[in-house]
Amino acid sequence: MNFSSKLLEEAVAAFAGLPGIGRKTALRLVLHLLGQPPEISEQFASDILKMRREIKFCAQCHNISDEDLCLICADSRREESVICVVEGIRDVMAIEETGQYKGLYHVLGGVISPIEGIGPSELNIETLIKRSESSEVKEVIMAISPSIEGDTTIFYISKKLKDTSVSISTIARGISFGGELEYADEVTLGRSIVARVPYRK
Amino acid sequence: MNFSSKLLEEAVAAFAGLPGIGRKTALRLVLHLLGQPPEISEQFASDILKMRREIKFCAQCHNISDEDLCLICADSRREESVICVVEGIRDVMAIEETGQYKGLYHVLGGVISPIEGIGPSELNIETLIKRSESSEVKEVIMAISPSIEGDTTIFYISKKLKDTSVSISTIARGISFGGELEYADEVTLGRSIVARVPYRK
Repeated sequence: MNFSSKLLEEAVAAFAGLPGIGRKTALRLVLHLLGQPPEISEQFASDILKMRREIKFCAQCHNISDEDLCLICADSRREESVICVVEGIRDVMAIEETGQYKGLYHVLGGVISPIEGIGPSELNIETLIKRSESSEVKEVIMAISPSIEGDTTIFYISKKLKDTSVSISTIARGISFGGELEYADEVTLGRSIVARVPYRK
Repeated sequence: MNFSSKLLEEAVAAFAGLPGIGRKTALRLVLHLLGQPPEISEQFASDILKMRREIKFCAQCHNISDEDLCLICADSRREESVICVVEGIRDVMAIEETGQYKGLYHVLGGVISPIEGIGPSELNIETLIKRSESSEVKEVIMAISPSIEGDTTIFYISKKLKDTSVSISTIARGISFGGELEYADEVTLGRSIVARVPYRK
């Protein structure tokens, strides 16, 4: 694109540097801001800066937080005996959306992936082991995406927890509710037959 | 979505306020910035603010500019006898991309639209008339999108230019190059037959 302004070009490049935003979309966003009162752009930039400068990670579960302890860890009504282990912050949001879980979380910050150079020490595994050693914790739920890296991570953590008294579980896998059998992938369908559950009459 | 942080929520709302960006995309963008070093977010915000605070509009053609005169108006190699009238800044970019035009521009900032409450006084028409009254200007090209509003705008401007010596032209309309006849709309196809051009043997 042929810009008549260096300022415009830099602002477009700034937006185009974000994932999934091309130069045409970036130009549309910049021209939108340019068409709005200056206060809109000031507020936009200040919200981003404030978030990036002031946001913290929960000292206990590594979830995003405004305080030292996140709202979930600080909530006395949550069950402290169960820890749900997830890869990232978005998984916490997804599980919270369901309203089905009342325990605490532990955000790993990824999964073990030798190809990407992510070893156990790059993840929040040490703090999980420490938390699990507390006598209050009875169960650790592994809510990790099914993949070679995910399975490796679950295997590594379960080895580390061998000497503790906590029980380890993984979330149930199978055909999704409303999912059609014929469109399910072979592995999922095969495993869902092997791991069939008794029907409650 | 259930956010554990108010700062995160505000940053997501800031992105989601932009056109075409939903809350899920906004969250992805914010988490991307959060995963990058703080300098990336600082640079991003500063590029946006600098653009919004310092950008100017060319005193002659109303194109976006870093100086009082835009790079095109300030370029002495451009033909000063031809003015191409367009709706917006993006049209200037599109025509510049073609490399086929060597004259100057005039950005109206929209088209006359009584429904949206845009009259001639809301557009940069007065300055166009003034520019056209200069003896240097020989031709005004109307590069306005074909619509009722666009045609009204062309008609209004041509009336205003009646007493000047400039000739007025519109960009050629017809079947696009590479376009298939059977997929062309009726109006375009009909008019392209009526306005047929002699074939150069």
